[in-house]
This record gives sequence, structure tokens and C-alpha cells, in this order.
Amino acid sequence: MAMEFQKIAVLGSDDDPRVVEPKTALVEHLTKVGAKVADTPRDCDLVITIGGDGTLLAAAHDVGAKGTPLLGINRGRLGFLADITPDEMIESVDQVLAGDYSRDSRLQLEASLETADGDTVSAIALNDVVLQRRETGRMVDFETRVGDHYVNTHAGDGLIVSTPTGSTAYALSCGGPILQPQIDAMVIVPICPHTLTDRPIVIPANEGVQVKVLERDETKAEVAVDGRSIGDITAADRLVVRAAASRTVLIHPPGYDFYGILRSKLFWG
Amino acid sequence: MAMEFQKIAVLGSDDDPRVVEPKTALVEHLTKVGAKVADTPRDCDLVITIGGDGTLLAAAHDVGAKGTPLLGINRGRLGFLADITPDEMIESVDQVLAGDYSRDSRLQLEASLETADGDTVSAIALNDVVLQRRETGRMVDFETRVGDHYVNTHAGDGLIVSTPTGSTAYALSCGGPILQPQIDAMVIVPICPHTLTDRPIVIPANEGVQVKVLERDETKAEVAVDGRSIGDITAADRLVVRAAASRTVLIHPPGYDFYGILRSKLFWG
Amino acid sequence: MAMEFQKIAVLGSDDDPRVVEPKTALVEHLTKVGAKVADTPRDCDLVITIGGDGTLLAAAHDVGAKGTPLLGINRGRLGFLADITPDEMIESVDQVLAGDYSRDSRLQLEASLETADGDTVSAIALNDVVLQRRETGRMVDFETRVGDHYVNTHAGDGLIVSTPTGSTAYALSCGGPILQPQIDAMVIVPICPHTLTDRPIVIPANEGVQVKVLERDETKAEVAVDGRSIGDITAADRLVVRAAASRTVLIHPPGYDFYGILRSKLFWG
Amino acid sequence: MAMEFQKIAVLGSDDDPRVVEPKTALVEHLTKVGAKVADTPRDCDLVITIGGDGTLLAAAHDVGAKGTPLLGINRGRLGFLADITPDEMIESVDQVLAGDYSRDSRLQLEASLETADGDTVSAIALNDVVLQRRETGRMVDFETRVGDHYVNTHAGDGLIVSTPTGSTAYALSCGGPILQPQIDAMVIVPICPHTLTDRPIVIPANEGVQVKVLERDETKAEVAVDGRSIGDITAADRLVVRAAASRTVLIHPPGYDFYGILRSKLFWG
Repeated sequence: MAMEFQKIAVLGSDDDPRVVEPKTALVEHLTKVGAKVADTPRDCDLVITIGGDGTLLAAAHDVGAKGTPLLGINRGRLGFLADITPDEMIESVDQVLAGDYSRDSRLQLEASLETADGDTVSAIALNDVVLQRRETGRMVDFETRVGDHYVNTHAGDGLIVSTPTGSTAYALSCGGPILQPQIDAMVIVPICPHTLTDRPIVIPANEGVQVKVLERDETKAEVAVDGRSIGDITAADRLVVRAAASRTVLIHPPGYDFYGILRSKLFWG
Repeated sequence: MAMEFQKIAVLGSDDDPRVVEPKTALVEHLTKVGAKVADTPRDCDLVITIGGDGTLLAAAHDVGAKGTPLLGINRGRLGFLADITPDEMIESVDQVLAGDYSRDSRLQLEASLETADGDTVSAIALNDVVLQRRETGRMVDFETRVGDHYVNTHAGDGLIVSTPTGSTAYALSCGGPILQPQIDAMVIVPICPHTLTDRPIVIPANEGVQVKVLERDETKAEVAVDGRSIGDITAADRLVVRAAASRTVLIHPPGYDFYGILRSKLFWG
Repeated sequence: MAMEFQKIAVLGSDDDPRVVEPKTALVEHLTKVGAKVADTPRDCDLVITIGGDGTLLAAAHDVGAKGTPLLGINRGRLGFLADITPDEMIESVDQVLAGDYSRDSRLQLEASLETADGDTVSAIALNDVVLQRRETGRMVDFETRVGDHYVNTHAGDGLIVSTPTGSTAYALSCGGPILQPQIDAMVIVPICPHTLTDRPIVIPANEGVQVKVLERDETKAEVAVDGRSIGDITAADRLVVRAAASRTVLIHPPGYDFYGILRSKLFWG
Repeated sequence: MAMEFQKIAVLGSDDDPRVVEPKTALVEHLTKVGAKVADTPRDCDLVITIGGDGTLLAAAHDVGAKGTPLLGINRGRLGFLADITPDEMIESVDQVLAGDYSRDSRLQLEASLETADGDTVSAIALNDVVLQRRETGRMVDFETRVGDHYVNTHAGDGLIVSTPTGSTAYALSCGGPILQPQIDAMVIVPICPHTLTDRPIVIPANEGVQVKVLERDETKAEVAVDGRSIGDITAADRLVVRAAASRTVLIHPPGYDFYGILRSKLFWG
């Protein structure tokens, strides 16, 4: 057996019984067919996650700029990212190891929160960068720019800048469109905007978005990247979101069908 | 001059120059025509607010269950509640004092947050009761019941229970319908729901809504009434929202036109 | 056996094999238990439809102002109106015949299309009255009034005036809210409005809606009531929609649960 | 004066008094500065339209695949395409003639309606291709494919395939996102879909969309390109929409700002 992927990390929560069983089976199988198995992505050629989309998302963050390919096994309902069911697991992994797979390169965003004192906190998003108020009952006011252009002054709950991958996550709940994964674009989605005409805007991936929060009494806002806070944002700070240099590489066994996943997840038809 | 309203409170921020001038003019005018002027609602027959909708909303809370009528003078753009412009102020107030006005009785909601240890925190809403998560990047799961019926298990940013008055406020930004003020109903509006079919439901005012938050790691949620927090809510607590016994009474000079205000505020036509 | 419903019409398409079988079984069963069975609603105490929501809707139109109660058996997926599955049919019908049922009285609307030459065409809606343009690529401009009040001048594809019953039909696809069936209200829902702030408005059932189409080259519009055209509408005509004097009475066996149907139809939870 | 644009067509309705005056002034001015003026686009280097967006859209169709640049003077409110006010007209035209302008190349779509008998009707869209039912009260069922992939079976009023330019037109009224004009993408927007999760999808411009209508009694549907019908579509036909080989070239004087137009048209801020 000539495998392209020699060293493989298998990741998944040992606390979840629905994960432990397929994980054990997978590790056994990989060992049997001659792969080296690790439990961290370091030095690996492939990362296989077992769990939900959140598990694969976390692994994408672990892998970071190295771009190690990721394969997602689902432990329950089909996910957008973890798109292989436990039933198909062994067959799918064998196909991938035999070289029968497709690479699906996904846009990442880099969020930089530049604070007044000159510090910058940066993080990479596979799904989205979210600026959001923290207090119920208050609005956050903020200004957006795209490239060199002032876009709008918004009032509302906040703003999402989403990748195509993230367009089926939180952005969809906020009224954003679905972006086909190969679109080289991001979408800016206001969250519960005070102005009803403040609608999602799709912009090319080579343009950056800058956001500044306006002074308003008692309002606090924070920035989260793929669901993890990177800090509060005040009127003295600036959030910049642009395409990252690196991309996330998903591996799919034959038959991957983005629209099929949409149909399943959104109960179409 | 025979006035129905003998003692009148005039409320408005002394810090806002756009308020101070009309406020001074109004107090002078009221004194001249023989009214007693106070700066708190206590023992007054009428409360006049100068400011925005927020100022009138605060006065409605001060007045509470006593139901003292409220008249709102706007200091900037026309509001939904503060619907008299400074230009019309003196003429409108004279009409009202001469008995030429309409009473507009608005539904209030009573929110009761029943905590695990047996305590209950209650508050009255003229606009809305909002249950909302506090952390960016997390969802809150919660169950709703209307009357004796289980309605749904929701996941998302939270839930609004809004009066007709509040239907043009935060609920509108979250996709809710406009309820004509005289409808004896409330509307339940999910905030950025994970399930796209989780849509606003309008229910009769004589039915109550009960909400229970489900256990979920790391998610905190709080309850706000007309924008003011009344406390955090956990899986051990229960939120009950029902029509309040009291109502808010708005006073309008002749020519009040709810649809005219909608047209102005929503840039129709 | 003492039955409240002595003479029962059983309606359903003889062309649909999924209808014929339960229909035959039902007629046999009714005859066995001593009911008179008819195939038109005339002189009947109860109308049972077998089919989808459309079959029950047609029967409601046949019954008209007489208000004969209706019971809906579904032949496929659960419907909003035909809410009994074939499996439950015999048991449910027996419960109803034994007096174990609830009456669910639903608001009807009366649409009157008053033409320039003095004629009026009227029809009763259990779901909705729809004014809509007929040509792809054109907009229809129209003015709405509620009671004595001018509401708005709209441009778009048209307008729906929906009952609570119709709020889960076409109106829902156009962004309208769900109205709990017992709400004494109707909802005005613009269809694909040119102005994004032109949002659904819920009004009390005792107020009427008037609509006038504005002159515009090459645009033709028509009015449909529960999906059936009652004629074209031009700038010389006027459409008036108000609560009908009669109501539709639905019969439910024990355990009817509006929210349960919503959960099933909208894939909640 | 060395002009890049030697021969210029000036187009606009002679029936509209708001057009006639600036048109006369423009023709005079162009003649004075030495340009040849025509009243059809043929052999012209530049087409200037005076009117609304519809006038420029019609000119884009006249110009067709030749790609003659277009400049739009508005006669009333600012348009998305006709973005120069009458006040700025002479100065803007002089700037353009002096070479001080930007070229804004916009994606066009080619719609091909392939009928059962082997005929194909094709048309070019700058805004959108719309498939829509013709009868009020009926739904049209249709299947979509993108590239080689089956996407969904839809039921509803129809479907829009829109360019970025068209994303601020009808597609926006149907819940579509705004696409920045330079995005190399189109957006598929269902019109009042029966399934609430049937949401807009943005796809790369190099993928084609195929649509087939499904058989359904009494439903008729037609296809319109930029608002003009190109024919009825039945279950035996197929609609194919793909990026056109040609593009529409808009000319803007200095200071063109897409976001500024959005702010103005959508009443932002």
C-alpha cells in the first residue's frame, strides 16, 4: 500500500461515547493498514476529526497556517464540515488513503484587533469574525469601511464578516446568503440592524473590511473569531478583517456534494 | 380656562441643550396658563416628556401601575412614542389642556423571573421582554410554552416577547411584524434563530408565555425589560410573560396618525 | 349510539388512489355505525374531507356561510387544516361522533372587488386575499388604507391580506408572521416590496383594508381569493377586505395541538 | 481638445419634460466642444443616457455585445446606474471627455430558453433573469442545477438569477444580498419560496445555472430578462443561465462611490 498520507492525527473528544467507539475503530484500522497515528496534528500529513463541525473547526485552528489537510467524521447528524457518517468511515478513509479524494481549499480570514495603545491581537477565522455588543437592551454603533471606501454607520447588535464556509453558520441565522465554498469572497452581515435596509453585502476576498465602534454610553462590544473572544473593542480601537495568506484544506472522499449537504441540513425537498 | 389636567410633570434631561430650551418654554407656558408644574410624576394628572422615545419609556416606568397619562414632545426626529415636534409643542399642549385630545391605551407586559431559590423578580414592559445570551459566539437553548402548550425548543441568540408598542422597536430589527397599537396581542420573536423556520408568532394578550433556558456549557443568558436587565437566567429558573393588569395611557393632540408615523420613521413612499 | 352528527358528507378526489382507499373505508364505517353518508355538504351536519389542505379549503368554500363543521383527514403528510392521519382516521371519527371533540372557529375574510362600472364581485377567504401583478418584470403600484387611515403607497409584486389560518400558507413565504388561530386579527403582507421597510402589519379583525391600484403602463393585476382569481383589478377599481360575518368551524378530535402541527410542518426541534 | 470619445449618442425620452431640457443642453454642449452627436448608439464611442436606471438598462441592451461605454445622467432621484445628477451633468461630461474617468466593467448573463422543439431563445441580462409563474394563487415547481450538480427542487413564485448589478434591483426585494459590482459571481434568489430554508446562493460566474419546470396542473411560467419576457417555459423546456462573453462598460466621472449610492438609495445613516 502506497499512501500519500503517512502520519495521521485522529482527534475527537474522549468524553463523548459516540466519539470513542468510532475513534478506537479508526485508530485500529489505520494502524492495521500501516499508517502512523498521532493524537496531535504536529508533523502529521492528515488530520481526521471525529465529532461535529466544532471539532473540525477546532482542528483547523490547531493546524493553523501549516495547512495540513483535514477530514471530518461526524458522530451524529451530518455536518457542513464533518461530512462523513460513522457508517461510511472506514470505506471513506480507505478511499482517501488510496489517493481517491478531492482537495477543497477554503478561504480563511485574518482578524486584527488594533487597540489604542498600539497592540494588535490577531486570529484566523475559517467561519467568521463577529463584533457584537455584550449587554442586552443596548445597541452598538459602528462604522464600516471596505478598502478605501466608507460604507455605512450601523446601529444594532453587531456585525459578522463571514467566509463562504461560515455563510451556512451564524451568518445564515442573521439573514446572510449562502456562498458556494469556491467563491473568492466574504460577506458582511449586520446583526439585527436598527435600519431595516442595512443588508448583507458580498465583497471580493481581496478587499479588507475595517470596523470602528462609536462612543456610546454603557455599551460594551467584543470581537469573536470562530466563536472565541479575542477581546473587547472600544471606540479607540479598530478591527481589520482581510483574507488570510493561508487556507484550510478539506479532504473529501469521492462523491462529495456541497448541495447535497445543503439539502440535508436545510430540509430541502 | 377649565383644565382637565391641573398638575403636570415636565420631564426631560437637563444635560441636553435640545431639551432644555423647549422644556423651559413649556414650563413657562404651563405656568402662564395656570397649570401646576412638577418635575416628578407623583400626584400629577399628566406627564409631559421632552426627549426621545427613551425618555417617554422611562416616564412610563416611573408612572407604573398608576396609569397617569403621558404626552411626548420630541427633541429631534419624530419618535414612535414622542410624536410631537418642538414646533408644534405649545399649540399641541394647549389643545390637550382644552380637552381636545385622544387617549391611546397601550398593552403592558409583566415579566416574572422565577429563580430556583423561590424568589421572583418582576417588571413591567411597555416595549418588550428580551431573553438573550451574553457571550458572543455561543448560542442559548430555550424552551417556550404558550398557555398550557409546549411550543418549541429554540437555539439562537434569544427571544423577544413584544407588545404592539414594542413591535416597531427591537422586535422589528429581528424580523417581527408591525402590530397595530390597538391589537390585543403580543408577538414572540426569536433572535437570530439557528433554525430558519423559527418564525415570529402573534398570540392573544390573554395567553402567557413561559420560557426555560436549557443547560449548555459556558452559556449565560439574561433578561431585560424595556432595555434594563432584571437579572441572569439559568436552567433552574423560569421566565413568565403575561399581559399586565395596568396599561400605559398616551395622550395625543388631534391628528394623531399611527400610519403617518410609520411612513415617516420607515421612509415609506 | 347517540350521535350529534347524523348526516355526514365525505369528500375527496376519486382520482387519487391515496384518497379512494380511506374514503371507502370511512364510508363503510360511518354506515356501519348508523350515520347517513352524503357526497355533497348540502343538509349535512358535518363534512369530512380526505386529501390535503386544499381539499378542506375547497369544502370550506362549498359550505360557505352555513358554517357546517369540517373535519380533515390527510392522505399524505400532515396538513395545517387536514390534521388527522389515515392511521388515526377511524378512531378519531369515532371520538368525534361520540361527542369527544373541540370546535375551532376560524376567521373568514370577505373580499369585495368594486369595479368602475358599479359592479361588485365578492368572495369569502379562509386563507387569504391576494392582489398580484400578472406580468413578470413589472411592478404594481397600489395604495392601502386601514379603516379611515391612509397607510402607504406600495410598489412591488402585490399584497396579501391573510387570516390567522392563512398566515401559515402563502403569507409565511412572503415574510409574514404566524398568527395563532384564535387571534382576532388579519395581517397585511406586501409581496416582494420595492421598499425594504414595507413590512407586514397585523391589524384588528374589526378594521377593513382598502386597496387601490395606481395607473402604470403595461401593468396588469388580478385578485385571487384562497388561490382562485375573482378578476382583474385596474386603477378604476377598489378592493375592500374585511372580516366576514360567517366563520369556518373546524372539528378536532381530542389532542389537537396547533403548535405540534407547526413543529411538524416547519421541522422544528 | 483631444477627446477619446469622438462620436457620442445621447439617448432619453422626448416625452418626459425632465429629460428634454437637460438633453437639449447636453447636445448643445457636446456640439460646442466639438463632439459628433447621434441619437442611436451605432458607430458611437460613448452612449450617454438621460432618464432613470431603466433608460440606461435599455441602452445597454441596444449596445449589446459591442460593449460601447455608457454614461447615465439621472433626471430625478439618483439611480444605481444613472448616477450623475442633472446639476453635475456638464461638469461630469467635461471630465469624462478630458479623459478623467473610470471604467466599470459589469458582468452580463446570457439566458437561453431551450424549448422542446429544439429552438433556443437567448437574451443578455445586465440585471437579472427571472423565471416566474403567471397565475396568482398557484405555485411553480422547478428544479435547479449548478454546473453538474443538482441543487434543489423548489416550489414558490419563481427564481431570479442576478448579476451583481441586478442584486440591488428585484433580487433585493426578494431577500437577496447586495453583491459588490466587481464580484465575479451571480446570485440565485428564490421568489417567495414555499420552503422557508430555500435561501439565496451566491455562485462563481464561471458556473452555469440550469432550471427545469416540473409538470403541475394549471401552472404557467414565463422567463423575463431585464424585465422583458422572452417566452413561456413548460416542463419540456430548459432554461440555462451563464456568464455572457461580453460585459457592460459603465463610465464614471471622478468620485464615483458605489457605497455612497447605496447609502443614498437605501436611506442609510
